[in-house]
This record gives sequence, structure tokens and C-alpha cells, in this order.
Amino acid sequence: MTGSKDDLPADGLEALQTPCLVLDEGKLAANLAGMRAQVDRHGVTFRPHLKTAKSIDVALMAMTGPGGPATVSTLKEAEYFAERGVRDLTYAVGIAPHKLDRVGAIRRRFGADLAVILDSLGQAEAVSEWSRRTGDRLPVFIEVDPDGHRSGVKPGDADLLRGIGERIAAGASLRGVLLHAGESYGLSDPEALAEAAEGERAAAVQAAETLRGAGLPCPVVSVGSTPTARHARHLDGITEVRAGVYMFGDLVQAGIGSCAVDDIAVSVLATVIGHRPDKGWIITDAGWMAMSRDRGTAAQAVDQGYGLVCDRAGRPFEDLIVAQANQEHGVLALRKGSGARRPDLPIGTLVRILPNHACATAAQYDRYHVIGRDGRLEGEWPRINGW
Amino acid sequence: MTGSKDDLPADGLEALQTPCLVLDEGKLAANLAGMRAQVDRHGVTFRPHLKTAKSIDVALMAMTGPGGPATVSTLKEAEYFAERGVRDLTYAVGIAPHKLDRVGAIRRRFGADLAVILDSLGQAEAVSEWSRRTGDRLPVFIEVDPDGHRSGVKPGDADLLRGIGERIAAGASLRGVLLHAGESYGLSDPEALAEAAEGERAAAVQAAETLRGAGLPCPVVSVGSTPTARHARHLDGITEVRAGVYMFGDLVQAGIGSCAVDDIAVSVLATVIGHRPDKGWIITDAGWMAMSRDRGTAAQAVDQGYGLVCDRAGRPFEDLIVAQANQEHGVLALRKGSGARRPDLPIGTLVRILPNHACATAAQYDRYHVIGRDGRLEGEWPRINGW
Repeated sequence: MTGSKDDLPADGLEALQTPCLVLDEGKLAANLAGMRAQVDRHGVTFRPHLKTAKSIDVALMAMTGPGGPATVSTLKEAEYFAERGVRDLTYAVGIAPHKLDRVGAIRRRFGADLAVILDSLGQAEAVSEWSRRTGDRLPVFIEVDPDGHRSGVKPGDADLLRGIGERIAAGASLRGVLLHAGESYGLSDPEALAEAAEGERAAAVQAAETLRGAGLPCPVVSVGSTPTARHARHLDGITEVRAGVYMFGDLVQAGIGSCAVDDIAVSVLATVIGHRPDKGWIITDAGWMAMSRDRGTAAQAVDQGYGLVCDRAGRPFEDLIVAQANQEHGVLALRKGSGARRPDLPIGTLVRILPNHACATAAQYDRYHVIGRDGRLEGEWPRINGW
Repeated sequence: MTGSKDDLPADGLEALQTPCLVLDEGKLAANLAGMRAQVDRHGVTFRPHLKTAKSIDVALMAMTGPGGPATVSTLKEAEYFAERGVRDLTYAVGIAPHKLDRVGAIRRRFGADLAVILDSLGQAEAVSEWSRRTGDRLPVFIEVDPDGHRSGVKPGDADLLRGIGERIAAGASLRGVLLHAGESYGLSDPEALAEAAEGERAAAVQAAETLRGAGLPCPVVSVGSTPTARHARHLDGITEVRAGVYMFGDLVQAGIGSCAVDDIAVSVLATVIGHRPDKGWIITDAGWMAMSRDRGTAAQAVDQGYGLVCDRAGRPFEDLIVAQANQEHGVLALRKGSGARRPDLPIGTLVRILPNHACATAAQYDRYHVIGRDGRLEGEWPRINGW
């Protein structure tokens, strides 16, 4: 109904069923170009992480070539992208031995150079045993932990690094070391972020030198997170960088300082379905199922609730956030203490909501509705989910 | 590999790719029977909410007949279930006028009695106008707010109730009032829950009497939430009850007292992929993408992290929770202050993780892997997501 009025923008959005996921192609392209320029400056390979976008259309824009390189977070992503021509892939989650047959099938079926990562003697033995048994010398990274965030061998644990490296090399192919400075997501000071990037770099080089000192190969030294990729001063000794969420950006990355709010390329299109003037609430059809339950900005200086509300052209309303969310209801309200005026948004009004965490929000959808550089809806790009 | 050992259970789970969603059919059936018995005791119609399960297989077990009645939270659910024979449906999220054509298409195409809800004069006028224009007298509920939780007309606002009712009746069909005591999710004391149920009931009856007193029809008086449905002492004046999450149960419902931990029918099957003995961590491949970002137990007496960890047969390990989660990594650790022993879970071990919130966790998957009453994997039930 709203679309029939002459004074509304000719963006085509009223044809969509809400809630749905909107992708601004111009902002996406700018984010991709910005990261590429930063990585190119360091003279290293760029291996974008496809876990955020999970879309071949986005991947083809982000990768340096149609065959990769690229990083994935699930074997389903590996299958999807390999089937679509991406041949150089790293599955950057520690391998479980019973997943090796699926890895092998992807390598054989698509001729893909799919590498795995691990951080224990047991996994290294299982991988080598699998390679000997199948005749497929699997490329393997040793995961190294730069900051105590999650998995990985400590960079100073030379005995364990050598032990794992030897076991890999005994049957499979030791490709190098891989690190992810996940603690950088908790920072926001540019100096601290540069230090986190340097810590990641130094840990990677230390681990690589340990392996090489033991006569083991370490051709690839791979680091990456969106914040550290953005803030690294130099990457001496590093051969490749990975990053994923930078493609879309989100409110958490804006809070860290890895992007500006205006750079965020994805938003959830929602419809106003009610009002509670007694409480100062505007109700929409985008609840936590549409936004995800991610409250990543709750721990940051500016808490954005479940998302920051913009008009249908993507311009934020001052201090208007998704203050509460039920499964299929979002409650818009002004940030606490705000002196801003609550906008008048009648029932049926379309709004666009910027997400806290692009990876989590995008995973609630099976496609992107793409808005072109002219601000008009131009098509759909499918995406995958699951494992 | 683990499946080849003779001493492992013959449950068939090693054939699955992890993470995946497992549904215990025996527990599901017991949960369904328990709620049915409680609702039957009150002598009212039961209209299960299919927003949690989103599966026709589960719906057919939960509904009193193959044609319904049932409640849905999205029009995609309405389409999916109507196409599979469910004819008596209420779409229990406030209607936006531009969604009416889609509602009408579902009604026509499948011969479905799909009703909508609203809580404003503007929506009522739009619905009546649509009904007059299309010749389809849409059945409409007035949403009433029993507890300030979300949407709805206040039960004592007689003028607004009458105004909305008259506008609906002018073109569409006023079917009754519908309430959801969402604040009950924040309770845990049985007495307080019984009071919340009584508050919901009394508000419903008050609103229905207001409409009837104005000469308006109100054949259906619909209430429901899993906690209030469980704790209602009597339902005088109520004609139907809705509930959804009770089918599976979850840790939040266990914290409220709406189910026991042992009743929880869904779990995420995960594989151990690493260890950090220095930190007391066991790493699995079920991160927040697999569990959802829902941290609903954080506000309860027992914080279950991102989920409570069980062995592959579904028996909880004492105090072992998903203490942290990244996108595809879950960090298992003992609850803070626990004196329990951390179980020895070698790489490749399968565990089952009970979710905080079944609706959010199940939405990360496109199917259920069903375990029969004999504890063995017996098949897959598809489910839908999205809008």
C-alpha cells in the first residue's frame, strides 16, 4: 500500500516481504577496496574469510581471483564455494578426525586445494594416518594462539610445535602456521589494536622460525582478524592475511573502530506494526529471529541494543535503537537519557536496522536483497547456512 | 573413526556431520502429552504454537487434528503448514497492511482459515478496507496486553477496544481477543506464575466482556505462553490456549520451572576438536552459530553459559557448560566455583548440548535428526526458517 504513494522513494523496497536482509552494493565494494588496499600495502597474499557473507556473489567481488584464495569456517562452505570454482581454500576450524573423509571428498570431487588446521599431536597423527591410507597428502596448518583467545599452540612451546610438525610431515603436508588474534574484538583504542596486530605477527613469525629451525617446512605464515588486519603497522615475516566481517562491517566493528557506522553494508528491512505511546515504543516485525540474539555492543562504550534504526534510505535516526526484542517483535525506543525526538513512524513504515554482528544476523537469512549504487533494489544474491 | 570401536553405543550418531540438531522423540511425545493433559483439564481448545518446531512432523504430533488448530509466528510458517494440510491457523504477530495480500493468497490457495491480529484503529480500518475490496471477510483478533510486555490494547481501555472492534466488524470478521503473558518468562516462583496466568485470564475475560457489552462478537478468547499454560489454576471464560516452546523445553524453561532439565527434547550434537589444559577448556565445533547467541539463562539463578553439556546419550556432565562461544568454536568449562571433575573427552568425542532457548537454537538448522525411544538414530525431519 505504501508503495503506491507518489511521495515515497522509488527504491523498490516495498516489493519485499519483511523482515529481510538488504545489502548495499556500493558500501560493500568500498569496504572490499579499503581492505584490499591495506593488505596490498603490506605485500602479502589476501585470503578473505567467507564465513560472514557465505555467498559466491560476494566472494567473487572479495577474492583476488575467481579460484581464491579464501578461508571458510565450515565444510558446507567449502563444498559450496569449491563447487562454484573456488579452488584454494583453508578450513580454519580445528579438524576432527571423522571429518577427514568429507575433506577428502571435496578435494577429489572439485580438485580443490582444501587445507585444514589443528593444534594437537593426536590430530596430527590422525591426519598423517589418513593421508597415508588415502594417498592424499593433505595440506595442514598448525594453529598457533597469539593471545589466549581460543585454540592453538602457544608460540613459545617449541617442543609441541616441532612434535606436531614432525607428525604432520610424516604423512601429510605441513603448509605452515595460522593465527587469529580474537582478543582484538575486545579493544577499541587504535594503539592497543596496533599492538594486538604486532603481537599476532610476532607470534606467527616465532612459531614459523621454530618449525624452520627444526628443518620443517613453513611456506605459509597466515594471520588475521578484521581489527588487526586494519591496524597492522607492518607484516614482516607474514605471507598472508585473512579477514571476513570487514566486508559488511557492523556495529561491533564500528565500536572497535574497524569501520564507521556509515560503512555498514547490511541491514534488516523491517515494517512498523504497532505503537505503545504510553511506553515510548514503536513495534516492528524484526525481533531477535531477524536480528539474531547477538548483543555484542552491550560490552562496548555505546550499547546499540539489538540494532540501530535507520530510515529506508539507510540514514540513522538519532538514538533510536531496537531496545528490546521478542522472537518476531522488535521494540524501537530512544536510547536511555537521549534528548532526541522520537520520529513519527506510522504503521507500515519501512525502516532499515544496522546489526550488532553481521555474521550472526546474516545467518538468519537465505539471501541478500541487493541495493545498487543508485539506491534501487536490483536483485537477490543467495547465501548458505548450516553445516 | 570413533564409530568403528566396539565399545561405543550403537546409537548411530557417528554417521552425522556435527554440529547438528538432535531431537529425542520420546521426550517430545511426553512433553506433548503433558501439555495436552493440562489444557484438556481446563476444557478449552488447544492451539499449539508452531514457531519453535517449524516442522510438519512435530506439528502433526502436537495438534489435536491434522488440520489444526495451530498458531504461527510468520507468514512463511502459515504457507508451509497450510500447504501441508493445516487449515485452522492464527498468525499471532500484529499485521502490517501490506502483508494482507499474502494472507489472502494463503487463505484462497489452501482454503485456510488464517486469522490475523492487531491492536490499533489504523490496522482495523486497513483490514476492513481490504476485506471489503477483496470480498474476503478476514477473521481478526484484537491483541490485548495483560502485563505490559509488548503489544496490545490495555484490557481496561474500553473505548479503544470498542473502537477497534467496531472498525473490524465494519468490513472484516471480529473473531475475538488474543493475549500473551510474555512477562511470565521472567518468573520462576510457582505462585507468581499462577498469578501471571490468572492475570492473563482475567485481562482476556475483561476485554471480551467489554466487546460483548458493546454488542460486538467475541467468540474466541485466546491466551497462552508455556509458563502460564503450565501454571493456570483455572481458565474460566477462556476458549483456547496457545503454547509452543513446551514441545522441546529448554534451559530457560527449566529455570522458570516449566520443565525439568531431563525433559529437554532437543540438543546440539557436537564434536570435541581440541583442548586447552592450561585454561581448563575443552573445545568443540559447536559455537554460537550452532547454539545461537541466546544467553537467556544469564538472568536466571543458574547461568548455563551457551548450553549444558551431556554425553552422547544425553546425560548431563556435572557443571560442564559452554562457557564461551565463537562463531564455530564452543569452549566447554566447569561452571565457576564447581568442585566437579572435568570429564576426559578426547578429540573426536561426541557430546550433546542442551540449549538455553529452543526457538533460537533450532532456527540455526534446517532439519532434526530424530532419536527414537530405543536411543537410536531413526531419521530426519525437515524444518523451515525465514520469512
